Amino acid sequence: MFERSNIRRMSGYIPGEQPPAPAIKLNTNENPLEPSASVMTALAEISPAMLQRYPDPLATNLRAAIAHYHGRDPDEVIVTNGSDELLRLVVTTFVDPGKAIGVLNPGYHLYNVLAEIQNCPLAKVNLRDDWLPPDDTAQRWNDAGARLALVANPQAPSGRLLSQNWLIELAEAFHGVLLVDEAYVDFVDASLGYELVREIGRIPNLLIARTLSKGHSLAGLRLGYGMGAAELVAPMLHKVRDSYNVDVITQHLGRAAFGDTQRARESWILVRGERGRLAQALGKLGIETLPSQGNFLLAHIPATFNGAKALQMRLAGQNIHVRWLNFPRLTDWLRISIGTIAENDRLLAAIEAILASGKVGTVC
Amino acid sequence: MFERSNIRRMSGYIPGEQPPAPAIKLNTNENPLEPSASVMTALAEISPAMLQRYPDPLATNLRAAIAHYHGRDPDEVIVTNGSDELLRLVVTTFVDPGKAIGVLNPGYHLYNVLAEIQNCPLAKVNLRDDWLPPDDTAQRWNDAGARLALVANPQAPSGRLLSQNWLIELAEAFHGVLLVDEAYVDFVDASLGYELVREIGRIPNLLIARTLSKGHSLAGLRLGYGMGAAELVAPMLHKVRDSYNVDVITQHLGRAAFGDTQRARESWILVRGERGRLAQALGKLGIETLPSQGNFLLAHIPATFNGAKALQMRLAGQNIHVRWLNFPRLTDWLRISIGTIAENDRLLAAIEAILASGKVGTVC
Repeated sequence: MFERSNIRRMSGYIPGEQPPAPAIKLNTNENPLEPSASVMTALAEISPAMLQRYPDPLATNLRAAIAHYHGRDPDEVIVTNGSDELLRLVVTTFVDPGKAIGVLNPGYHLYNVLAEIQNCPLAKVNLRDDWLPPDDTAQRWNDAGARLALVANPQAPSGRLLSQNWLIELAEAFHGVLLVDEAYVDFVDASLGYELVREIGRIPNLLIARTLSKGHSLAGLRLGYGMGAAELVAPMLHKVRDSYNVDVITQHLGRAAFGDTQRARESWILVRGERGRLAQALGKLGIETLPSQGNFLLAHIPATFNGAKALQMRLAGQNIHVRWLNFPRLTDWLRISIGTIAENDRLLAAIEAILASGKVGTVC
Repeated sequence: MFERSNIRRMSGYIPGEQPPAPAIKLNTNENPLEPSASVMTALAEISPAMLQRYPDPLATNLRAAIAHYHGRDPDEVIVTNGSDELLRLVVTTFVDPGKAIGVLNPGYHLYNVLAEIQNCPLAKVNLRDDWLPPDDTAQRWNDAGARLALVANPQAPSGRLLSQNWLIELAEAFHGVLLVDEAYVDFVDASLGYELVREIGRIPNLLIARTLSKGHSLAGLRLGYGMGAAELVAPMLHKVRDSYNVDVITQHLGRAAFGDTQRARESWILVRGERGRLAQALGKLGIETLPSQGNFLLAHIPATFNGAKALQMRLAGQNIHVRWLNFPRLTDWLRISIGTIAENDRLLAAIEAILASGKVGTVC
């Protein structure tokens, strides 16, 4: 055994299953629609010579496109091999081993795994009964000496949205770097006016993570990015990041995605509408869901189903895949990604049939 | 300044320049030929649905193809976002912060940068006058308490090949994990019978890094891999690696590259032949080179040129790009990648013209 003792002790992050197609895949929060045709056009433009040469290590053109999209400066943007890489980079860059990392509990379990790899304790702040964090969150993290805190917004796995003002106060009260992971932000109702990205630069310790996996239907491509004050981005961009972390194809397709966002915007509208319809229909079947601003619902599975895990397995037997999360406070819940209209209908029909059969607890 | 003090102090790795095409680009050791047509065929097979969904996190099919190619088991293989990622993973997985990392000096400067990021001191063993390491290298690393050593073979930047037997003895004498970075191994003369990959598993602390950037003309794609005993690979594969570290396109194109290696093999033969021709022709111009088994030559620039840096800049003025490395013992040398026959001819003609002009020291 040559690995470090903290690595030996820990368990890795376990991603959701990728069942073979065709399947109704509502377990990893992918976008229900395919990506923009402009992305496929860009793919056809890739030449052998582009593959032969190293990519631009700084992804200058893609960073400029992203900066333009958000009305920011390119020095405030770093692109990464999925937002997973950004999350790892912030840990490596800002947290000495042994120092605490602030998280909310329950939260996205990957944050815990990244802390273990860096051999850092977690400063866990438990969510209240309404799945929102308490108002003294920053103080608790400060008391634990946390140098970094990782918060998803919309939150994972609840889908609940923290308000922009609450996050600004959190960042201002917290002594370390606050990373707000906006993986699901494209699905937030536009009427809420949530635009935390406007605060970048004004708040020196604020970083925002984004991904094209969800909002742009490009989970297979692995493209994420981070935004923050140039001073905060610089050490990741120029020192800690692998030199050629985003390949030439991803840089080219990423530019195409930002050059034509119509298809993505259509998917956001679809998801918002279906999210409301699915929540209402599940409620009629006795399954309550939390108010979500993501492309998923966290659904409380009542005792009539003999356990959330049993329902998840029953649905999987019909090739309908939802996520059961084996963590405290979550074992009676299922996380259900918003699918296409037809996929959501199939899910609802399957649950209705299970209820009607009266054999809800039977695992097939 | 929120970054860690070791990050604040360090400088990042500086990759070679990517001048705009068309250029004679002999500065970053890319393959002179374009990739296999099979890779481009595979690219045309990428569908919108493949991009929409997450890739196989374990890259099962690609790892099987690589294992088959080398006659190994898939559990002995990990694929990475370029071999850069593998180098970072071994540091994170096997070396506690503060513990030493063994390197040769001069060597590939990226190793030093990775050690600084992990806040690890370097156990540097200086190369002898013949650019080979001394026989007590393992002992010196052990004395420094090194848990990991990183050695390129063929070596960077000299191109000199360490023999298989010498490396086996090194691995057996060294108490930590030995990573042999075989980025350039495809260009080794077949007659030398170098096949260290056969020793995997028999030597429990041996890891081998490979990349498709050089031998397969796919620097733009970012695909590397590691091979070692399953017990050595497992913690990187299942715990430390980012979950979806290799995207769906790269997995698909990587399989195509291993399914049809004819074009790659042609490039290896071309490089070996041109390496000999270029070395001989440079010698006739008064520029001696080290015996190289890579796709590059380390060339000693005599005083008549008024400095290697001056020659590099003079050539760059003619859009011929070679690499000058600003490190001790290297400032009188240029590292020249082997180009196509025409590119090598252009380089030789340019140097000859500079010599004939008598103004060799003038920087344009």
